[in-house]
Amino acid sequence: MNKHLHPIHDRFLQRADREHRLMQHSRVLWLTGLSGSGKSTIAQHLERRLYNEGYFPQALDGDNVRAGINNNVDFSDEGRRENIRRIAELSKLYVHSGIITINSFISPTAAIRQMAREIIGETDFIEIYINAPLEVCEARDVKGLYKKARAGEITGFTGIDAPYEPPENPALEIRTDQMSLHDSVRAIFEFIEPVIKYRRG
Amino acid sequence: MNKHLHPIHDRFLQRADREHRLMQHSRVLWLTGLSGSGKSTIAQHLERRLYNEGYFPQALDGDNVRAGINNNVDFSDEGRRENIRRIAELSKLYVHSGIITINSFISPTAAIRQMAREIIGETDFIEIYINAPLEVCEARDVKGLYKKARAGEITGFTGIDAPYEPPENPALEIRTDQMSLHDSVRAIFEFIEPVIKYRRG
Repeated sequence: MNKHLHPIHDRFLQRADREHRLMQHSRVLWLTGLSGSGKSTIAQHLERRLYNEGYFPQALDGDNVRAGINNNVDFSDEGRRENIRRIAELSKLYVHSGIITINSFISPTAAIRQMAREIIGETDFIEIYINAPLEVCEARDVKGLYKKARAGEITGFTGIDAPYEPPENPALEIRTDQMSLHDSVRAIFEFIEPVIKYRRG
Repeated sequence: MNKHLHPIHDRFLQRADREHRLMQHSRVLWLTGLSGSGKSTIAQHLERRLYNEGYFPQALDGDNVRAGINNNVDFSDEGRRENIRRIAELSKLYVHSGIITINSFISPTAAIRQMAREIIGETDFIEIYINAPLEVCEARDVKGLYKKARAGEITGFTGIDAPYEPPENPALEIRTDQMSLHDSVRAIFEFIEPVIKYRRG
């Protein structure tokens, strides 16, 4: 034991090994947009599409992150920042595990998304703007949150009494008020496939 | 879009899909033991061994966790608990991604390991005690930490001025003062292979 107690670095599994095994190049697809813009629905269908096409993706969203590793983070400015910081660090681990990560979090400000970009790294961070006008998102009101925000039962709600800063230069923008779910998923898939498709060497 | 905005649950990717694609059953191998017992070295070599045998593992340790998602956690009792809580939640995400996770963290108390077991779930949590007597770990002193702890430069160091509570009923115990690294890795591999080997249906 003692002789080899110091790790032998060149034997360690590398990201390249994992990408080779999964036959893909990993990236973080960072879906940003208003509540009700369709981020999570697109993420879930994109995840299934990628899997069916032979890729190995993992969607991260409020359901599996807010309820677990971030269950002690509040909705203050500092809490929101810490929420996104942990999500970015988690995504970085996943992307180094060789996995294509699909994140759907409102991530409302340029500063918060810049922090995520810096943690994850420029090459691995792909910003995708899921865009629908506030009126459309509010009319959908899938979770009834806009109604509560308008009634003052929720405060600091993005789009109502907290700002959403649209990405200035996203890698891709999807207008979900103009495109079907099917076409939205296809547009993202076709955009990222050249990036994630495995290339030897 | 609107018609399908509510997620279609039976289309979602499930853990079973991921395990099928990776041809393995995922588990969290939770290596506990003193600093210098050999946890990280075993984890790294076990990770390589599993990969070489066709499995898809991910080692989690201080290098990729403390430096990232847990970089704002201190070494107070509360900080240590939060450190392990986040690691357990992270492991739960990974195991639900279908990945065999190999964790090497001292995790010194029964209470802290019980918390991890409860978060991860009884079936998925496999406790492996990496055991070497304190004298042996201290003599190795790979990182020079025991020397610093004895000199009082580090306080609350497990085994010196903070307790280590050995697991009472670990799934497996590895005596690294009595076994080579190679045999230690083999013993764990042979123990877990029947559990992780893919079985249809």
